[in-house]
Amino acid sequence: MDTLRIAGGQVLRPDATIEDADVLIDRDAGTILDIGAGLDADADATLDAEGCLVTPGLVNAHCHVAMTLLRGYADDKPLDTWLREDIWPAEAALTPEDVRVGAELGLVEMIKSGTTSFADMYFDVPEIVDAVEKSGLRARLGHGSVTIGKDEADAWDDIEESIEVAREFDGAADGRIRTAVMPHSLTTVGEEYLREAAVEAHDSDVPVHYHANETSDEVGPIVDDRGERPLAYAQDLGMLTERDFLAHGVHVDDEEISLLADAGTGVVHCPASNMKLASGMAPVQKMLDAGVTVGLGTDGAASNNDLDMFDEMRDAAMLGKLAADDASAVAAEDVVHMATAGSAAAIDLPGGALEVGGVADVAVIDLDAPHLTPANDLVSHLAYATRGSDVRHTVCDGQVLMRDREVLTLDESAAMDRASDAIAALCERV
Amino acid sequence: MDTLRIAGGQVLRPDATIEDADVLIDRDAGTILDIGAGLDADADATLDAEGCLVTPGLVNAHCHVAMTLLRGYADDKPLDTWLREDIWPAEAALTPEDVRVGAELGLVEMIKSGTTSFADMYFDVPEIVDAVEKSGLRARLGHGSVTIGKDEADAWDDIEESIEVAREFDGAADGRIRTAVMPHSLTTVGEEYLREAAVEAHDSDVPVHYHANETSDEVGPIVDDRGERPLAYAQDLGMLTERDFLAHGVHVDDEEISLLADAGTGVVHCPASNMKLASGMAPVQKMLDAGVTVGLGTDGAASNNDLDMFDEMRDAAMLGKLAADDASAVAAEDVVHMATAGSAAAIDLPGGALEVGGVADVAVIDLDAPHLTPANDLVSHLAYATRGSDVRHTVCDGQVLMRDREVLTLDESAAMDRASDAIAALCERV
Repeated sequence: MDTLRIAGGQVLRPDATIEDADVLIDRDAGTILDIGAGLDADADATLDAEGCLVTPGLVNAHCHVAMTLLRGYADDKPLDTWLREDIWPAEAALTPEDVRVGAELGLVEMIKSGTTSFADMYFDVPEIVDAVEKSGLRARLGHGSVTIGKDEADAWDDIEESIEVAREFDGAADGRIRTAVMPHSLTTVGEEYLREAAVEAHDSDVPVHYHANETSDEVGPIVDDRGERPLAYAQDLGMLTERDFLAHGVHVDDEEISLLADAGTGVVHCPASNMKLASGMAPVQKMLDAGVTVGLGTDGAASNNDLDMFDEMRDAAMLGKLAADDASAVAAEDVVHMATAGSAAAIDLPGGALEVGGVADVAVIDLDAPHLTPANDLVSHLAYATRGSDVRHTVCDGQVLMRDREVLTLDESAAMDRASDAIAALCERV
Repeated sequence: MDTLRIAGGQVLRPDATIEDADVLIDRDAGTILDIGAGLDADADATLDAEGCLVTPGLVNAHCHVAMTLLRGYADDKPLDTWLREDIWPAEAALTPEDVRVGAELGLVEMIKSGTTSFADMYFDVPEIVDAVEKSGLRARLGHGSVTIGKDEADAWDDIEESIEVAREFDGAADGRIRTAVMPHSLTTVGEEYLREAAVEAHDSDVPVHYHANETSDEVGPIVDDRGERPLAYAQDLGMLTERDFLAHGVHVDDEEISLLADAGTGVVHCPASNMKLASGMAPVQKMLDAGVTVGLGTDGAASNNDLDMFDEMRDAAMLGKLAADDASAVAAEDVVHMATAGSAAAIDLPGGALEVGGVADVAVIDLDAPHLTPANDLVSHLAYATRGSDVRHTVCDGQVLMRDREVLTLDESAAMDRASDAIAALCERV
């Protein structure tokens, strides 16, 4: 057995307690063998965690990773205008190679900020599959389909692509890659296509992932046309099951929260995106109180503008308090749970907790920094004061992806250069 | 003349344009001699800025810097409970040496995140003065007075201390330290004391700085008791002049915004604190539209939980959009202005812009990072994606305070150790 020891740190346990302990990992199986003080000093490899907090790798439960290319490309516009005038035209001009380049940049950014798995909706998914395989990260990937504005043949083609991608790549990269069928949203995909997507996804034993209740502009037309709320519609479509997960859930009423809780459908809260696009404030504390599975996501870098899940935890805690008009709402421990176990449960990937027998997806955070001093409460520090740049090592599936800030699986410098070149070329085309 | 050249970077100009330029500094005078391409290669010293963005040092316009000791000490509680149950008892147990230790930690944190000047309200101000002098930062300091719950003699003593501190230390540290009289707020200080504070401050040619309209709980009683809004009351007290500045301004109505604009009183927006304490959303875009001078502040580390002005810019842009229900509100350029020239104007300290003849307060930001790639829009990156840890060099008054992430004026490691010891001892006392 090939073992890795993360040695000398403080370990965040699933109950949010912290203990001085080593973490011993079976690198072949990619799992945690033991957690405790003074473990096997003869491990085949060691990562020093002296003065560090050892946490589960963070789980970014909703992303469009290749959109790092469009970071800062267009800001400070309402969602609809921003999509129509800037983002969709730029995306229409992206080549598969651009998607690959953008994805690699985003994967580097994730590794450098302690994220070990993510869910992603985009196009040219084979490129993203390759990049994820190379990166060593864990992911649930899918092709985002849109049918409005398309003729019937093109619309069916796009839905078919989402279904085919989900079937073809599920279990890729030695099982680190799982998939979902991903119709873009309840308003950008027509009813018959949504219905088919749900049936085919579940027949293929994969979830459906989609945007829902993101803006009030999106809720109104569904209510007007159908006389029911969006999530009642989703339930009717067969897309509100325990395996499915939706992004945003900003404008959900109490009945929809009950539907989510009863169905066990995961909600991925994206606070930075919801603020930046002025979408609104999701009732996160209400969802947590109702027992909804809530994860956290950065959304794409164009509406964030980074993929740092530490920012997202801070944003979630702060926005959750405003939404509840209660400073005790969405506490530090809650957002740490959302960014780890909550996200992992929402997107149904292993990880999100450091447990014997569980997957070895780990972030090691260097606490030796003025902004993390004094160590009054390390869970508070994780939620409010830690930044992605404090992550020292990142491990996924037992493999070290970053050691002492050096990314080992991808070429950081080349990824940045290629992204700069790709966007320069794209700007000449659009 | 002793000169310093910041060489090879891109320079952010006051009109938010960016040009390839060197910055030449007169270190004796602490001012900028020239900005342009290919400046004097024979400067006495050089800071490499290749691949970097050279910006004005950030101005943290409302802080309680010694509260770094209480970072994570108590979180997720409403303002009133948090103050009464946790913060005030802890503060009552702080020794002058604790304040010194907390301040030094906070100053290290500021230098490491590109902040070059700040306004601060606390007690044991002589300790903070010493720490600021040693640090090389620029500051407007004052003693925060509270009179409610005190007998008349103690109340007057506390106001007197604020006035005396303002007189004694104005112009200290070769003029880098200025002062203000700082009654804590319109509700925690009685009317006669506020009136006196304003008269004495202006007689001494210093501003009055106070908290105002932070929570709705604070506005209601003033309206009930006096039949006027808090800022009308402040105007009546003589505390709403062009030199004065107030923190928060969350719950201000349109008339109060007009009062602020007409008076020229600066407002320091503290978005992270306002979110974390669920205080509310300040109408920042409305204030900007009305011509109010708006700066940005972190507030203390206990309600933030860091002193990173890059977090604050991001928070301000995002919260400002939600408050306005408009994704085009409080744009990237606006928050960069607020964190630099806006803050400097609000607290009336030099700085906040890179201009020939202006003070040499500078932050040099390393752009060679995945989360700042590609360079689609560097002003957007400053507002949304840059973190304090991206700052490479910090210069204030012509003096290099940090070079290549090494703080030169304070002992970073000792500051962290002393803070950890101080809070451990304090926790045994309270």
